Amino acid sequence: MSAEKGEGGAENLLPDPSEALPRSRKPEGERERAEGSTMAETTNMRLRLPLICIILEVILIILFGVLVEYNDDTDAKLWNKNRTSITNDYENEFYYRYPSFQDVHVMIFVGFGFLMTFLQRYGFSSVGFNFLIAAFSLQWATLMQGFFHGMHHGKIHVGVTSMINADFCTGAVLISFGAVLGKTSPVQLLVMAIFEVTLFAINEFILLSILGANDAGGSMTIHTFGAYFGLMVTRVLYRPNLEKSKHRSTSVYHSDLFAMIGTIYLWMFWPSFNSAITNYGDPQHRTAMNTYYSLASCTLATFAFSALVNHEGKLDMVSTPSMWSSFVVQEVHIQNAALAGGVAVGTAGEMMLTPFGSMIVGFLAGTISVLGYKYLTPFLESKLKIQDTCGINNLHGMPGILGAVVGAVTASVASKDVYGKGLERVFGEDAHSNDWSAQTKGAFQAISLGVTLGMALLGGLITGLILKLPIYGAPPDTHCFEDGLYWEMPGEEEGHHELNEVATPNEVEKLSS
Amino acid sequence: MSAEKGEGGAENLLPDPSEALPRSRKPEGERERAEGSTMAETTNMRLRLPLICIILEVILIILFGVLVEYNDDTDAKLWNKNRTSITNDYENEFYYRYPSFQDVHVMIFVGFGFLMTFLQRYGFSSVGFNFLIAAFSLQWATLMQGFFHGMHHGKIHVGVTSMINADFCTGAVLISFGAVLGKTSPVQLLVMAIFEVTLFAINEFILLSILGANDAGGSMTIHTFGAYFGLMVTRVLYRPNLEKSKHRSTSVYHSDLFAMIGTIYLWMFWPSFNSAITNYGDPQHRTAMNTYYSLASCTLATFAFSALVNHEGKLDMVSTPSMWSSFVVQEVHIQNAALAGGVAVGTAGEMMLTPFGSMIVGFLAGTISVLGYKYLTPFLESKLKIQDTCGINNLHGMPGILGAVVGAVTASVASKDVYGKGLERVFGEDAHSNDWSAQTKGAFQAISLGVTLGMALLGGLITGLILKLPIYGAPPDTHCFEDGLYWEMPGEEEGHHELNEVATPNEVEKLSS
Amino acid sequence: MSAEKGEGGAENLLPDPSEALPRSRKPEGERERAEGSTMAETTNMRLRLPLICIILEVILIILFGVLVEYNDDTDAKLWNKNRTSITNDYENEFYYRYPSFQDVHVMIFVGFGFLMTFLQRYGFSSVGFNFLIAAFSLQWATLMQGFFHGMHHGKIHVGVTSMINADFCTGAVLISFGAVLGKTSPVQLLVMAIFEVTLFAINEFILLSILGANDAGGSMTIHTFGAYFGLMVTRVLYRPNLEKSKHRSTSVYHSDLFAMIGTIYLWMFWPSFNSAITNYGDPQHRTAMNTYYSLASCTLATFAFSALVNHEGKLDMVSTPSMWSSFVVQEVHIQNAALAGGVAVGTAGEMMLTPFGSMIVGFLAGTISVLGYKYLTPFLESKLKIQDTCGINNLHGMPGILGAVVGAVTASVASKDVYGKGLERVFGEDAHSNDWSAQTKGAFQAISLGVTLGMALLGGLITGLILKLPIYGAPPDTHCFEDGLYWEMPGEEEGHHELNEVATPNEVEKLSS
Repeated sequence: MSAEKGEGGAENLLPDPSEALPRSRKPEGERERAEGSTMAETTNMRLRLPLICIILEVILIILFGVLVEYNDDTDAKLWNKNRTSITNDYENEFYYRYPSFQDVHVMIFVGFGFLMTFLQRYGFSSVGFNFLIAAFSLQWATLMQGFFHGMHHGKIHVGVTSMINADFCTGAVLISFGAVLGKTSPVQLLVMAIFEVTLFAINEFILLSILGANDAGGSMTIHTFGAYFGLMVTRVLYRPNLEKSKHRSTSVYHSDLFAMIGTIYLWMFWPSFNSAITNYGDPQHRTAMNTYYSLASCTLATFAFSALVNHEGKLDMVSTPSMWSSFVVQEVHIQNAALAGGVAVGTAGEMMLTPFGSMIVGFLAGTISVLGYKYLTPFLESKLKIQDTCGINNLHGMPGILGAVVGAVTASVASKDVYGKGLERVFGEDAHSNDWSAQTKGAFQAISLGVTLGMALLGGLITGLILKLPIYGAPPDTHCFEDGLYWEMPGEEEGHHELNEVATPNEVEKLSS
Repeated sequence: MSAEKGEGGAENLLPDPSEALPRSRKPEGERERAEGSTMAETTNMRLRLPLICIILEVILIILFGVLVEYNDDTDAKLWNKNRTSITNDYENEFYYRYPSFQDVHVMIFVGFGFLMTFLQRYGFSSVGFNFLIAAFSLQWATLMQGFFHGMHHGKIHVGVTSMINADFCTGAVLISFGAVLGKTSPVQLLVMAIFEVTLFAINEFILLSILGANDAGGSMTIHTFGAYFGLMVTRVLYRPNLEKSKHRSTSVYHSDLFAMIGTIYLWMFWPSFNSAITNYGDPQHRTAMNTYYSLASCTLATFAFSALVNHEGKLDMVSTPSMWSSFVVQEVHIQNAALAGGVAVGTAGEMMLTPFGSMIVGFLAGTISVLGYKYLTPFLESKLKIQDTCGINNLHGMPGILGAVVGAVTASVASKDVYGKGLERVFGEDAHSNDWSAQTKGAFQAISLGVTLGMALLGGLITGLILKLPIYGAPPDTHCFEDGLYWEMPGEEEGHHELNEVATPNEVEKLSS
Repeated sequence: MSAEKGEGGAENLLPDPSEALPRSRKPEGERERAEGSTMAETTNMRLRLPLICIILEVILIILFGVLVEYNDDTDAKLWNKNRTSITNDYENEFYYRYPSFQDVHVMIFVGFGFLMTFLQRYGFSSVGFNFLIAAFSLQWATLMQGFFHGMHHGKIHVGVTSMINADFCTGAVLISFGAVLGKTSPVQLLVMAIFEVTLFAINEFILLSILGANDAGGSMTIHTFGAYFGLMVTRVLYRPNLEKSKHRSTSVYHSDLFAMIGTIYLWMFWPSFNSAITNYGDPQHRTAMNTYYSLASCTLATFAFSALVNHEGKLDMVSTPSMWSSFVVQEVHIQNAALAGGVAVGTAGEMMLTPFGSMIVGFLAGTISVLGYKYLTPFLESKLKIQDTCGINNLHGMPGILGAVVGAVTASVASKDVYGKGLERVFGEDAHSNDWSAQTKGAFQAISLGVTLGMALLGGLITGLILKLPIYGAPPDTHCFEDGLYWEMPGEEEGHHELNEVATPNEVEKLSS
């Protein structure tokens, strides 16, 4: 048996996933690139990605130059003029908000980024594209949010609060990213971000400025909007042949541990997220605490139902093959459902929800999230053709709606008796007047949910159609969930080296013949 | 030679550890589950875990509904009533304590969770069970600590300080978890947490409220208590045949890197831990700084002694087989001993220990911790039958006792000369009176240590006996340190796939025949 | 064919990298240690490392005992005496600076530590030696910086600001570590730290106290100094035969994901780094925001140019073999270049640079950093014999110089018109006087850059020559980038176990014969 034949046999045995990976230990000149010339052409980023990045950044820089100014707390002249004769720098917004900002920042870049590293061969893209689209979105969001509700004499004023709001808007884009994860090129993601950020700012403007809604932690503006926008986009981009990349859509042991970094950071800092832009004092303090209890309660619900819905009573940290669908459903219970408690108190957290109420909400959120992963996600994929890679409907969608409803109900029972002078600090200065009614407030909260759902679905539809154009270098069905398409891949793990060296069949054969 | 025979031969060669793992690439229906029906019955969590989680959470929710109220800084009515005419939200407790709280929170969930991921096949359980029992314990601790020393007119008042205290109590439970790591089911851990949190609150009440002890960083209440409670529990649960799981009780390269994430986070945030609940102003500032210097000094001692006690002068980040014992001792020097400096200034940190004193204490702590890992842990296992998976005696036990002694000594030399008006801010208002004597104070500190040790050992004994009941689904001796027992396992690493595909002997044989 | 022959054949096929690793599954007594007795002697740390650690720490403790005192904000007596009759603990320095300190601390220990874990077999050393030299340097820096510009009546006063400054100085040492990564023993690194910290303090003293330069974020004092000091050290330590360790100088998939943890943490917390020691109020707030926008802009430039300079338009997260050089150049674009934006606004960040200006600077920094990795690093190595493992010239060197220039220019156009009363808060009380001129200030900033470059290169030369002495146990050319030289290595990954068990050729042969 000749060496060539032996090699051929070995290659037939080699599975598909390694195709796009460079084979180490071969002479560099001979390095095989799995994607043939056709694929390389369609997915090549050499011009597309630099072009869109540079154009976008140049536009951003010009618009910042024209429109953006320091606000009273960041401008040297204004802050020092405004200061009273006594030094009171501790009243600068920075000291109230910056620690919360940094926690939110960690959630956006480490939390979201690593949460999505569970896929075995998509870790670079998960963290890296998360990084890219977040860095773009926070700049674009500063402009859009400033344009819609932060203009002062024709200028956008920026400070730590606008930084937190920009990160929040970025969060919505990253939620949508979770739905299309593994099936989109970085150019598509940037295009999606352009539209989503814009629509987010419009929706936020309608909710907060026109309808006067409360939504400090973003159950509606961030989670519901981001989730249903993303689900609609992934619906439009439906890939009937995605099972061709099925073998790559699962996790491996260490990829799940990386994902747990994301989970835990999101979980820990969620109290900071929900409280980051509430009023100073008791609202900020109370929101953080309500979120803390909601999350703790949610975690116990998640472990309980994760074990209950498993045939062998095992906990699902990770993906298991679904019986319902050709696509591997991600039942990432512990990694995701435990976070639903933070989403579900995003609106009511600043209100007098009490720890008791927060824990009930958290428990419900964890329960519907696990059940959603188990029963709804497969249904969405098989019947509604919604391929939701990270199951964002379960982590952000349904818990976001729950949060909106809880917010509407909690607002509708607010009273001077319970809040005292604090009523106007939570619900705005209008709450001081006799015209104000908690029931009306509750109704406006409910209307806000409806508006958000409408905006998200319509916006997702339009954006999805735009993303369907065949010009962005989207991955082929056979190469979804594959870093090798967009990244220079490192040499293989030690195990692979030795494998190739020691144990390839044709070498063994040589020894034994 | 037939293919079947070849396969049989391959399986004989296959080591035990992979038994509990699903074999990827086989038809799903045929997937082997290594644990036979008997083991599945005894360790199945399908009913046990949901039942205990749901019952506990429902009890917690009811008790929170009956007993827990917002405190003056989180209640909308109270805070806004209490405020003077000038807006002074910056005096809200939130701004003094919340950044410290978040650092402590990271230590509890990332620090403890990832510190225990060093085992090669117990990463999901380390992070996941850490997550579960912490989420439970912080809720239960809020009630127990509130009941024993936070009642106001029959209600427990909560705010950021109670959140930090609840996280602290959780820390003690997680320390004990380190001793029994890999040998207990999640149900056992929850039962342990119920008892440990309760006894922690009682011990804390005796120390702080009755004996008037200082222990802001918890050398006694957290570290000594958690360590000796856990050591007694693991003593009662002694497994003579644990060597059957020996091959899984070691680390692999990347599992050790994950563990370093835990180490570094604990190390970095320990200054926040020790200073989180001290008085505002100089005590908080001083405590953070003393801890910073103690840890830095401890780190140099750890590297020095780790290299010194190794035959080849190599640093022990990881486990090495012990000559003393059948069980693989974890000499996780760098991962653990470098932290002892934080433990050892947990009591004296808020006092005028000076950086000089802190560095001496840190150096001693690092030294005894490394020597403990090298010489004491094997002795404890072989002679006293204490199987201490993470070596908590070296990281929390002995350094905790050292910290208590340093605290007693430092308190006994406190004087108005050194502290000025700050004396009462550190040692309480009593220190103002003429009756107060530093020597007496020191004596009470020493008594507190004795009480803590007694409570921990007795409590651990009782709890251990309760945990011995054969109803919790504990892992068999052959399947300790194994995630596959309680978690859905992902497919194997790339290396394994190809291994199975390319190089199983019977396939090679086919090629060469 | 005999079993021995089979084994011999297998070993010939086994690559060099595994030599220093223990072979698992062999009887412990027979465990092979790859490094022969000669190498063990030259690199053995058993006496060297303990000796230097203990001596250094004892010296540090003695000097701290003699020289170091609590400052006004950490001393119990002084703080409580200084307090006015009203409690105003919120004015304690701690509440202004401690959250920033913790962010900086995370950058030093997690950021720098994990950034360097990209090498496949140097993760323990990257995180571990980073840990060791940082713990030493921060203590030594407290003394040196205190000696040169913090003496009060013969004593060094310490508090959170001195802690931040000590961490900053440590940062410079860790930057230099990046240049010599993988080619130095821990003893060499400690010796380097002794000299570098000392020279850092002198240079900082000249810049800040004599020349009155602004450099809050350390573009000059930290980045330029650390980079050119390190580059000169690595030049002196040039290894012509480093290609013998070439196979270990690349990354693997998961080692790159670990490195991304470092990248993201550095990126996120850089706003805290640059603003940590600016004046309270608007400068701190403004600096954080300018850095935030610079980094966001830099990230888009990095992705753009990383794809553009790659033949296939792929993103370089990792190392690719260079055509220019025998040494594998680390083109770690995304991991490193995205951070250059933080470096480049380290001087001007506290000034009225505006978000617009910050984004331009960030864009330039990202661009020159990527181009540096692509074109300059190979040139430095092949022509100037500078082996820069992490490419610190691209991340810290050139962006640091850019930052110094931007700072000089921004200072030179400062005016009362733009800064108002804030002018003296940014540029010092001198700015109040009529003598003060922005042009002169700008000139002094430029002179500061020159001084820094001179000090760094001269200091690096001297230190490099000292480090060349053959007494520190430096690794041989064949064993660079190898943890096994200094660390007890854990058993191999699962993949390896099974590989050895299932598929070693001689065993396969037995089966098939």
